[in-house]
Amino acid sequence: MPKVAEKLTQMGLVLPAALQPPAGLVLPFAWVNVRGATVYVSGHGPQNEDGSIAGPFGQVGGEVSLNDAVDLARKSAVSMLASLQRELGDLDRITAWNRVFGMVNTAPGFDQQPLVINGFSELIIEIFGPEIGRHARSAIGMAGLPFNMAVEIEAHLTIATV
Amino acid sequence: MPKVAEKLTQMGLVLPAALQPPAGLVLPFAWVNVRGATVYVSGHGPQNEDGSIAGPFGQVGGEVSLNDAVDLARKSAVSMLASLQRELGDLDRITAWNRVFGMVNTAPGFDQQPLVINGFSELIIEIFGPEIGRHARSAIGMAGLPFNMAVEIEAHLTIATV
Amino acid sequence: MPKVAEKLTQMGLVLPAALQPPAGLVLPFAWVNVRGATVYVSGHGPQNEDGSIAGPFGQVGGEVSLNDAVDLARKSAVSMLASLQRELGDLDRITAWNRVFGMVNTAPGFDQQPLVINGFSELIIEIFGPEIGRHARSAIGMAGLPFNMAVEIEAHLTIATV
Repeated sequence: MPKVAEKLTQMGLVLPAALQPPAGLVLPFAWVNVRGATVYVSGHGPQNEDGSIAGPFGQVGGEVSLNDAVDLARKSAVSMLASLQRELGDLDRITAWNRVFGMVNTAPGFDQQPLVINGFSELIIEIFGPEIGRHARSAIGMAGLPFNMAVEIEAHLTIATV
Repeated sequence: MPKVAEKLTQMGLVLPAALQPPAGLVLPFAWVNVRGATVYVSGHGPQNEDGSIAGPFGQVGGEVSLNDAVDLARKSAVSMLASLQRELGDLDRITAWNRVFGMVNTAPGFDQQPLVINGFSELIIEIFGPEIGRHARSAIGMAGLPFNMAVEIEAHLTIATV
Repeated sequence: MPKVAEKLTQMGLVLPAALQPPAGLVLPFAWVNVRGATVYVSGHGPQNEDGSIAGPFGQVGGEVSLNDAVDLARKSAVSMLASLQRELGDLDRITAWNRVFGMVNTAPGFDQQPLVINGFSELIIEIFGPEIGRHARSAIGMAGLPFNMAVEIEAHLTIATV
């Protein structure tokens, strides 16, 4: 069994189905865009196992609590792993998490974006280890996110090419 | 005639003049920064043919309607192509649109950023085709943008080096 | 004496100590992530010489004046240079500033983000010169930033590998 897949199983994590956008919405971009050894990953939000977008919805520090937001960031990592699995076939091909850009739907006055995005960073480092999982990061506050999601995270990776 | 230029002519698209910033404002960065085969493109907003910034201005979901915003995203693509043409000399040198970061000046409660940035993505894919035009994307909501623009879009490309 | 270090001394700039996050906050990412010749730099805010986060705090165009914000962007550049010095050992290894992403904590109606981030860009170009310092840039408005900082800036560089 591939190493990362085994780790996901041990941790009880289940990769969700592909995102089902709301009826009528076409998303003409690639969730994962592989160019040679470089992987550009689109902004991912939290998903339920059936691929639907996971709530709670709204602004962190407002409708969404800090604790819930940390969990949504963690779920966003799992969504991203699911997209990567679909595109790469094998998550063990990932050799480096270079950059993570963590966007938090932010209520007026909320400034704990780093705590929220730690839900993502800690999961990635736990799964991939400190060397492959090592990433630069910004964790910042947005005025709004698609589908009123509370968290959306973009990333930039390197893979082994066959 | 170069392929992309021909396509632009067929589509009736005219590349605007270089941006004229407001009097007294110096912009000390490069609109297009070519480093080897990698091209970093600065955030571009919509422009009129004379290079001035195109309105309507303000927040999408507020002063600016969704329909207008889609058109502004499309115009931002044309602005970016104009900057790329000036820097590269020939748009056929572009071999890959890797990443698009679409920023929407967002009124409270507006969450249809993907629909807005589709104006950009669909034009790029129409012009460059599904392989070269393929890009990862985030489409997210900002609290404000320069000159009160409604849309600003950043990109990361690869070119053929001579 | 290395060229950039000498320049910093001439300009009277002192690199601050490593950031001391508030008690209890773990930041599990890398401030500077070197992957081969590519350097991903995390979002940096302004710091005092002792490594603490520098104010004034809040939104530009609100609690924080434009002039103060320009100075905070300049200080963010110095923070970033300090992190780069710690990671690279020698700032002369930097061969290219490719991309700068300037995030401004933005009060309603404020739209002069480019003026703010010029504090960063102009310092980098002054220190590294127009060729190495040349960068693509976006300067945009956030709904909130960590620790209620007024400015945070992310960058992407290239270095000479030994």
